[in-house]
Amino acid sequence: MPDGPGRPADGPRRRGRPRTEERAGDTRERLIAVARRRFAADGFDRATLRGIAAEAGVDAGLIRHYFGDKTGLLVASMQLPVDPVEILRSVIAAGPDGLGQRLVAAFLTAWDPHREVIAGLVRTTFGNTSALPPALQVVRGVVVVSLREVLSGKDAGLRAQLIAGQLLGLAMLRYVRPLEPLASASRTRVIEWYAPAVQRLVTPGQEVL
Amino acid sequence: MPDGPGRPADGPRRRGRPRTEERAGDTRERLIAVARRRFAADGFDRATLRGIAAEAGVDAGLIRHYFGDKTGLLVASMQLPVDPVEILRSVIAAGPDGLGQRLVAAFLTAWDPHREVIAGLVRTTFGNTSALPPALQVVRGVVVVSLREVLSGKDAGLRAQLIAGQLLGLAMLRYVRPLEPLASASRTRVIEWYAPAVQRLVTPGQEVL
Repeated sequence: MPDGPGRPADGPRRRGRPRTEERAGDTRERLIAVARRRFAADGFDRATLRGIAAEAGVDAGLIRHYFGDKTGLLVASMQLPVDPVEILRSVIAAGPDGLGQRLVAAFLTAWDPHREVIAGLVRTTFGNTSALPPALQVVRGVVVVSLREVLSGKDAGLRAQLIAGQLLGLAMLRYVRPLEPLASASRTRVIEWYAPAVQRLVTPGQEVL
Repeated sequence: MPDGPGRPADGPRRRGRPRTEERAGDTRERLIAVARRRFAADGFDRATLRGIAAEAGVDAGLIRHYFGDKTGLLVASMQLPVDPVEILRSVIAAGPDGLGQRLVAAFLTAWDPHREVIAGLVRTTFGNTSALPPALQVVRGVVVVSLREVLSGKDAGLRAQLIAGQLLGLAMLRYVRPLEPLASASRTRVIEWYAPAVQRLVTPGQEVL
């Protein structure tokens, strides 16, 4: 029997497609919907994968299968235009040398095209006093954790947070409350000046260029 | 005629003191009250000294006498627990060498005892989308302007804003949304790590210790 007019051949309602495959996408979406609700109601720390899985009517192992861990589920539930986990993974993969340069470049490349999105996230996160909003959890659980992995020497945790602070400060004056010339400066110029200041926290004892 | 008991010789209520001097404090307070209203209603850029003076019923020259300029009037109208103009003046007076160290130290010394105040200012400033709130005007008109004076070389304005961003980022993760260990780290440790990163933007070509 032919598909109806205007219905894509691979559309979800195609006759004869196995119902189990249709359910996979549905399950993922349902998990994200439940996670958004639970993270908002309970906060990231108190929400449990077991509770979210139960409410979605699936096994908790499926969350690990789709999202890796709770932070992965959180990032997915935020529906960001860029994937901070993926970006940071590739930024830190090459090690500490030149990390400042790669980090600032990746940050600008990710957010320059989505200024409104990050501005909204920062406003929501720093404009109220509610417990641990999602974006701050990503700063803490993704950005700081990833950076810390690649830092060696004293006070690695503190330095990772100071680097995260540098990126936040950049976001505030370039995106959230844009000041000129910073808001319109080319990426190249911002990287030229800011990357060495970030690198100073990555490899404190070394030459910074 | 002797002063009354327990009354300081130069106190404002000393007998025979001219009434015009008593009015001086009143005028200053009235100017501040009018300025707060006008800055809130018109925004910093559109509010004029002439308009504020007229509404307060005094000559505009008096504003210059009491507050120096419009930014000075704004800072006075914010009734901050610390005076950013004064602090920055002494920080930059010694020139660019060691500025990162002095700046981060002064920032922490000023705001560590007033975490709630700066947290509230940052929330108000970055948590909404209204035009140029007072704290942002201070960042732009006091912090960036002061820093820029002391920076030499290329892109001084951009570098001054990036330094302001570094301080904002520090404020966000130490005061507004405190993350540990940064929130409780001693000033000495924060200065040890962050000052060289700030200094890197002050004197880019030089050794940063």
